Amino acid sequence: MTLILNLKDVEQAINMRTIIDQIEKGLVEEYNGGVIMPPRMNMATNNQGFFRLMPAVMNESGYMGFKAFFKSGGQVRYLIGIIDQKENNLEAMMDSSYLTAVRTGATTGLATKYLARENARTVGVIGSGLEARTNLEAVCAVRDIEYVRVFSPNPQRRELFAAEMSEKLGIQVKAVASPFMAVEGADIVNVCTNTSTKGNGVAFEGKWMNRSMHVNSIGSTMPSMREIDTDSFEKADGIVIDTIHLENESGDVLQAIKAGQYDRSKVVELKELVAGKKVRLHDEQITLFKSVGTAVQDIMAARAVYEEAKKLGVGTDVGEFLEAKLFN
Amino acid sequence: MTLILNLKDVEQAINMRTIIDQIEKGLVEEYNGGVIMPPRMNMATNNQGFFRLMPAVMNESGYMGFKAFFKSGGQVRYLIGIIDQKENNLEAMMDSSYLTAVRTGATTGLATKYLARENARTVGVIGSGLEARTNLEAVCAVRDIEYVRVFSPNPQRRELFAAEMSEKLGIQVKAVASPFMAVEGADIVNVCTNTSTKGNGVAFEGKWMNRSMHVNSIGSTMPSMREIDTDSFEKADGIVIDTIHLENESGDVLQAIKAGQYDRSKVVELKELVAGKKVRLHDEQITLFKSVGTAVQDIMAARAVYEEAKKLGVGTDVGEFLEAKLFN
Repeated sequence: MTLILNLKDVEQAINMRTIIDQIEKGLVEEYNGGVIMPPRMNMATNNQGFFRLMPAVMNESGYMGFKAFFKSGGQVRYLIGIIDQKENNLEAMMDSSYLTAVRTGATTGLATKYLARENARTVGVIGSGLEARTNLEAVCAVRDIEYVRVFSPNPQRRELFAAEMSEKLGIQVKAVASPFMAVEGADIVNVCTNTSTKGNGVAFEGKWMNRSMHVNSIGSTMPSMREIDTDSFEKADGIVIDTIHLENESGDVLQAIKAGQYDRSKVVELKELVAGKKVRLHDEQITLFKSVGTAVQDIMAARAVYEEAKKLGVGTDVGEFLEAKLFN
Repeated sequence: MTLILNLKDVEQAINMRTIIDQIEKGLVEEYNGGVIMPPRMNMATNNQGFFRLMPAVMNESGYMGFKAFFKSGGQVRYLIGIIDQKENNLEAMMDSSYLTAVRTGATTGLATKYLARENARTVGVIGSGLEARTNLEAVCAVRDIEYVRVFSPNPQRRELFAAEMSEKLGIQVKAVASPFMAVEGADIVNVCTNTSTKGNGVAFEGKWMNRSMHVNSIGSTMPSMREIDTDSFEKADGIVIDTIHLENESGDVLQAIKAGQYDRSKVVELKELVAGKKVRLHDEQITLFKSVGTAVQDIMAARAVYEEAKKLGVGTDVGEFLEAKLFN
């Protein structure tokens, strides 16, 4: 059978903690060498649109799949297909407009689990969009967060974020009037913006990093996009990246490399971190996590959603809609 | 809306002549430079399986999409997704186990339309599988074929092919006991085999080529696969290939290159042929068409099926199952 999951189905089947755990499993498999993940295909379409394909094959667990996403006229749609190798079955095709933000958050949560101080209690958030929400939710799934401050340029949006996330997470979330007010003294900082489109430079500066802080930054996923300054890379004692491809894809990293402030000797891949490599050596250190997203994160998040959807009985079962053909 | 089409739906919506015409349109667009078609992604999976992804973006017509196919345990499944750029909509996802054979046939039909003598009446077929059927059907869609001879090593299979195709096409189809008996004096030859797995060398030899013959060969789609000998390339006056990638993918072509019998000065791409380049200069010449399949052929065949399925009202409409997300 193949299960078709639309946005509502996916939303019902999301469990942040499970998705974090599944992504961790995927990264361990990646570390063990069982994963084939080519660089994503990126094709230009009309109207400054694009069509992108990101596949991953996981030969240890036997999972595989792809994300396809396409943009036109300022709108983007996301599709994930997951395949069970053993049964040679297309298990599900699902909307991943929301799921993409959830897996980005979950990956941040995973990195935070290994990088933030155990007793981290405060989070500073820069940004008030969907990613800011899912990333905060994920951080709260791995640490006992008590207090959150949020800044984004639009007062209405940051107030709405504060009200909604306070309600959702059951903790105090306060909107503040500047990015510095949001991050000053915070144990954890989440930078979740799309600053490039606003043309006002970066959203977070290294000089705001205080001792023992852990910073997550997820918004600079293309060379043209920026959100943290190059000093942030120099000031961090340890840097974790979700994929080495990010060194060609993230504007923040490209600029830090150009400025000579990206010291590779202190950079570790997330798969190495979850496989046991130590990055934070003591509570006083500053750590930085940068991500652009990978197909393994997508596939593992989608698998978690699929398993939950089956349990809940949500989605549309279109039967064995792909015929099995003898390969001769 | 997104339409889900299983094998039965697709079979109902197939019209060979329409698919040939659509593929021709796609190739003209490709010739005009409106198409982005990266080399296919080929990933190895467990159990000598694979996962392959073939996308194409057509920026003139605004169509795009991908084929995903995956093999495990001797079984393969095929999925095609097609996207309308303008509406940024996933129009359909369809089983393409049968459709892949149909589009291969349709592409052969298209090449034959331009390459075979106008008054071609006889076809020799080597092979009796699904591809042998769809390729013969397509040739009969572009020429007034009166008589067909078929050979494949298994007498039962070739007799069944003769009976079924005679019934389906309403012409005489006769099973014969050797490949030479099938092709001797034929106006058109279709070689549609998978000889590599049988270990008995090639299925067609250049010495059998008589004057004015046109030969289609579609079965050597990987470096390990062979079906026509290297002399065939030397003996042909003109050679048409469906994609230049074939020079790295087809075992037949790789061997002909190695043997110094592949003269690039007489090789033309199918898109050039449909755009007006002459290959057959007179009736006496021998022509050869080699194909491995491309994503443009897949997308255009799938679009033809989608349009027909909508008219017929077949398939499962799963609504607008991918959410449109603002891209900011």
